[in-house]
Amino acid sequence: MMFILQQVLQAPQQLQALPPHAEADADLMQQVLDESGKFVAEVVAPLNRDGDEIGAQWKDGAVTMPPGFRDAYQAFWQAGWPALACAPEDGGQGLPAVLEATLYEMLSAANHGWTMAPGLLHGAYECIKHHASDELKSAYLEKVATGEWLATMCLTEPHAGSDLGLCRTKAVPMADGRYALSGTKIFISGGEHDLTDNIVHLVLARLPDSPPGPKGLSLFLVPKFYADGTRSAVVCERIEEKMGLHGSPTCVMRFDEAAAWIVGEPGKGLNAMFIMMNAARLHVGLQGIGLLEAAWQKADAYSKERRQMRAPGSSAKAGEADLIEAHPAVRRILDAQRAWVDAGRVVAYRTALELDVLKHHGDAARREVANRWCALVTPVLKSAWTDQAFHGASACLQVFGGHGFVREWGIEQIVRDSRVAMIYEGTNEIQAIDLLLRKTLPDGGAALLKLLDELQTELGLDLSSQRTRAGMERFTAFLRDRLLPRATAKDAPADLANWLADDFLRAVAMLLMAWAWSRIGAAPGADAPRWQAAQTGFWRWVWPEFDMRVAMMDATLSAG
Amino acid sequence: MMFILQQVLQAPQQLQALPPHAEADADLMQQVLDESGKFVAEVVAPLNRDGDEIGAQWKDGAVTMPPGFRDAYQAFWQAGWPALACAPEDGGQGLPAVLEATLYEMLSAANHGWTMAPGLLHGAYECIKHHASDELKSAYLEKVATGEWLATMCLTEPHAGSDLGLCRTKAVPMADGRYALSGTKIFISGGEHDLTDNIVHLVLARLPDSPPGPKGLSLFLVPKFYADGTRSAVVCERIEEKMGLHGSPTCVMRFDEAAAWIVGEPGKGLNAMFIMMNAARLHVGLQGIGLLEAAWQKADAYSKERRQMRAPGSSAKAGEADLIEAHPAVRRILDAQRAWVDAGRVVAYRTALELDVLKHHGDAARREVANRWCALVTPVLKSAWTDQAFHGASACLQVFGGHGFVREWGIEQIVRDSRVAMIYEGTNEIQAIDLLLRKTLPDGGAALLKLLDELQTELGLDLSSQRTRAGMERFTAFLRDRLLPRATAKDAPADLANWLADDFLRAVAMLLMAWAWSRIGAAPGADAPRWQAAQTGFWRWVWPEFDMRVAMMDATLSAG
Repeated sequence: MMFILQQVLQAPQQLQALPPHAEADADLMQQVLDESGKFVAEVVAPLNRDGDEIGAQWKDGAVTMPPGFRDAYQAFWQAGWPALACAPEDGGQGLPAVLEATLYEMLSAANHGWTMAPGLLHGAYECIKHHASDELKSAYLEKVATGEWLATMCLTEPHAGSDLGLCRTKAVPMADGRYALSGTKIFISGGEHDLTDNIVHLVLARLPDSPPGPKGLSLFLVPKFYADGTRSAVVCERIEEKMGLHGSPTCVMRFDEAAAWIVGEPGKGLNAMFIMMNAARLHVGLQGIGLLEAAWQKADAYSKERRQMRAPGSSAKAGEADLIEAHPAVRRILDAQRAWVDAGRVVAYRTALELDVLKHHGDAARREVANRWCALVTPVLKSAWTDQAFHGASACLQVFGGHGFVREWGIEQIVRDSRVAMIYEGTNEIQAIDLLLRKTLPDGGAALLKLLDELQTELGLDLSSQRTRAGMERFTAFLRDRLLPRATAKDAPADLANWLADDFLRAVAMLLMAWAWSRIGAAPGADAPRWQAAQTGFWRWVWPEFDMRVAMMDATLSAG
Repeated sequence: MMFILQQVLQAPQQLQALPPHAEADADLMQQVLDESGKFVAEVVAPLNRDGDEIGAQWKDGAVTMPPGFRDAYQAFWQAGWPALACAPEDGGQGLPAVLEATLYEMLSAANHGWTMAPGLLHGAYECIKHHASDELKSAYLEKVATGEWLATMCLTEPHAGSDLGLCRTKAVPMADGRYALSGTKIFISGGEHDLTDNIVHLVLARLPDSPPGPKGLSLFLVPKFYADGTRSAVVCERIEEKMGLHGSPTCVMRFDEAAAWIVGEPGKGLNAMFIMMNAARLHVGLQGIGLLEAAWQKADAYSKERRQMRAPGSSAKAGEADLIEAHPAVRRILDAQRAWVDAGRVVAYRTALELDVLKHHGDAARREVANRWCALVTPVLKSAWTDQAFHGASACLQVFGGHGFVREWGIEQIVRDSRVAMIYEGTNEIQAIDLLLRKTLPDGGAALLKLLDELQTELGLDLSSQRTRAGMERFTAFLRDRLLPRATAKDAPADLANWLADDFLRAVAMLLMAWAWSRIGAAPGADAPRWQAAQTGFWRWVWPEFDMRVAMMDATLSAG
């Protein structure tokens, strides 16, 4: 991780150019990485198995978290980890977002279920900070910043998943200026638990006589306990039985005229939530990277102790066998996942750095570049790396043979846990629509073409960079001369671009990975076998998808 | 299923050319399909959920199967289903293998866990029939043919999974001509259960002074109970906790000098097992097809009742939403899986028909053609369709959004259950090595090129056939002019072909699917929207992988 931060991305130099992070040198970054690694390995990782097997338990509206979860969480917030990147005036440490990113990657690798609890804090913090009234802020901001109280995002309803505009939860004005919330929300991660003494719910609801659709939604805040200690009319009706992620209670929450405060303007509820979407989607992308890293570590270790069959060209005698790491079928799986993780880190950490730039850089033009990066890269990161977490973890399971299907080794848990990340925070298909239909077609591809230009200026003259540049040029020509004219033609079928969206996102993901591997390849020390094997893995087993995606889009454009 | 059997494959005509199946007309086939569908839907399918949630339970060496499993199995064997394709002189009905194939596809779709129990019978029956002594046959053949007793295959040991040559279980000759078996076998499906009154174990073990490796292995038979009612020294030590397939107990079996009979010649244990490998791998391929069909049915039904967002070009008003089946992202998933299932049926049923031909055709040359088909197509079917069962079921889960991750809908169970089929009966990587290194390189590609020639003669002149033919010609040229010369060159690296194997199998899978879709397209009635949508799905979303695989092999040959 440090190699990528320091040698590939020059993160210390990038950060030190930002006034609040003048002290963020390599030593500081290394120290935070060491400390977070220690906490995660010693306190959080050992709880992962019980989190899956015992899971969160619901009884009479209360949720008991798996053994050790509360103690670990109490230690976590008291050590200041949730507030790592929060502003000092809110009780935070004011460190860069990129160090929060590396922390959450580690946490997700170690214990995805446990990590769901603090994972929502950052968004709630930003939301309260930027939209809540001073009165609400004085009561809730520091509690949420420090993580002393955990928070939820209550968006989804039984009939309204991806389509928040269908929300029906009602908010009726009360005499005291508050609102009575009534309705049912589902899939609320951490809606109820025993990790903290209070829980702060941010709820999307509809004021009386508000217009139908998304513009009629407002945002409200209701805690589990009010300041006077009375309990709000918010009830956890049950928790879902799920494929995985058993350490995180997925709650059905009922609001029975619960007294709540409005956050921000009426009818601006979605705006308040969308402002934190890039950060939240980056977090989910980091979950994907962390989970894939965990799967790779398990499979890599197993491949170095298990012996089966003679590898091609082996000198093993009859009745003897080679380590399975020597078999091409196993090597291929491991090197390809390594290629995904390493490139994912480059893309994700760079995105976090751009978030830091966006927040703190003095130059508006530079902030605009950062904004472009975040808007375009974040949906790709979220989609491609959560997809790979699941599919790559399954590939790593294959390395174990029959033992992979057995719980004991822990690899099948990663496959089950990771699956949900392809769905939440906007399904991966919605990320693709976001990239192509919302962020590329409307400006005639201008922003994306600019981004690709900028990426090309970072390339060198080596073979890897040449291949990356050729891919970018091919894609640029395809986008400008073929996709855009055809998809935006007056006579184009209304659904043409939708049919292309998944392939488009995957092609961009391949380009980002190619760029990342060219950057890694140019870094001092990248000639070590560990990096060379993964780079070869990328070009051989991952990159060929790029041509396939362009060909698929081309065929769709011809057919459409 | 009947459309493919009758209109695409002309199964009745094919079968009626074989003396034992002169009566196998379309009516008979339809009747067996109807009856098996009825039994599966009414008796077996309703037990699937409990099979997963309650699962098989181990206590003190005994295994209790999930509720209803024993009754369903007793009804199953008493109705004659296990003996469907067994010879009449062994107590069977003598029906063609292709009708056993359709039965097992349905069973796997309905309840993969339950189906594991009878799924092993066919192999055990063939093994006893062709290799056991008359004494053994008189005691066990009919019991296994009819399924009154279930059977196991005890191959794997803790240190010997894919590499059976490493087996250590010992067989020491006893004074009475039997052998005392000692050792531990793992991953024994149905090693212990309460479905039948007796269980027949077929066990690979090593005689004293036998050579190391696979040539030192012999096959033995030991029942749970001997004829006099005494229990053998075979103990189920525990069952595994698994990712899925909880309805099938995966047993650790300990043999404590258990008195057993030898089956076949000493040192020929693997031959005795390999003879039934094509049939067993076809069965696993059918599991894949059945599971994918089940996943598709669930997702298709959900897409026709769930409304989210407005589809492109929709006339829905603000605040309204369209059925998700109208969204391209959903359509694409459904049509692609439909393309896999339909093509899988063509390939699998054809393979089963070729097994019937191989068994009963009077002409040796025709039997040779059938043998070639089975040898080459079976590993592709096993690998590509079990891979797709898992990945396609996961794609179908995505159609449900967050609801797919919740147990309630049953789709996540299919993802979990299906994962193991990529591993057992030879991992999918081993299927690829089998196809390329054992069945293609040694004869200079002669058999595979002949098969591709034969497939081309079945193609027409329509557009679909033209595309298929172009693909086959490209592959043929690549194999003959590029792959074979390079991979078999004197200076080729020893592992070169191994690096290619996975891509090679996938490319052949694409060609088989293209052939299948051309055959379907030429069948009367294939102009119905249901077939057209799936055919379009194939060419758009599946077939582009063919070019990618050829390109990957080409790059590997250049690099190696």
